[in-house]
Amino acid sequence: MFSKNKNIKFIVIIGCGRLGSELALKFSKTHNVVVIDKNEESFYRLSNRNFTGFTHTIDTTDIEALNKMKLDKADLVYIVTPDDNLNFMLAYGIKMMKYNIKLIARVNDPVKKDIFKKAGVSLFCPIENSVNDLVEDFENFEGNDI
Amino acid sequence: MFSKNKNIKFIVIIGCGRLGSELALKFSKTHNVVVIDKNEESFYRLSNRNFTGFTHTIDTTDIEALNKMKLDKADLVYIVTPDDNLNFMLAYGIKMMKYNIKLIARVNDPVKKDIFKKAGVSLFCPIENSVNDLVEDFENFEGNDI
Repeated sequence: MFSKNKNIKFIVIIGCGRLGSELALKFSKTHNVVVIDKNEESFYRLSNRNFTGFTHTIDTTDIEALNKMKLDKADLVYIVTPDDNLNFMLAYGIKMMKYNIKLIARVNDPVKKDIFKKAGVSLFCPIENSVNDLVEDFENFEGNDI
Repeated sequence: MFSKNKNIKFIVIIGCGRLGSELALKFSKTHNVVVIDKNEESFYRLSNRNFTGFTHTIDTTDIEALNKMKLDKADLVYIVTPDDNLNFMLAYGIKMMKYNIKLIARVNDPVKKDIFKKAGVSLFCPIENSVNDLVEDFENFEGNDI
């Protein structure tokens, strides 16, 4: 798993909700992972599930505070909070501080994709992907096996 | 598009949030679509976007009220509210009323998948799919093209 990514060792995940926690669990099996969330309680999603990385509770709206978390040493940053405005601000702010950093931001509302794109932020949109998956399943559906 | 699904003519979508509205827009191009939501304001997502189906504002927690919406005539029902408990209750309740109905329910929290599965409810989980997509992208990543 992840064998092709020998250059990526240190992954930072901002946001420990449903998505961030699942990502953190997967990546922590093979990489050094730091998960950041503003609410300490969010880390309950990692407890008793063999998470081997680190967690930090910091104000995710404070770019300067985030920068102190050695963000500049991250090989890859996932920004996956449920708040699109925060995700955009973080992606933009982090890129400003470290132009070449690899980061991928979650866009929750498909209508906001354009602003991320225009700012050159790599993004993924779970809702849009789900719609595409569902439509594809629908197209492949024949009989009762949907 | 959807050419294989000649038997599916009437699609009901319960929940007009980000996901339900995007699904409704896609399917309404080729099928008869009814979208149901408890909040009339939710339908703003369909306005000025060439939606050609119907919308109904009804209490989605009231199975009897839903049944009056000709749910029994639907060829396919998507249950896609952001509330997993409601989605489960609706899926279970609708299946009880019409055993052979084709329905697909959204599970927001991956940890709740099992209860849907055990009840025989077809499901999809946007978060889980996104995690798998991201990990797959990561595995395929070589160089700077992530």
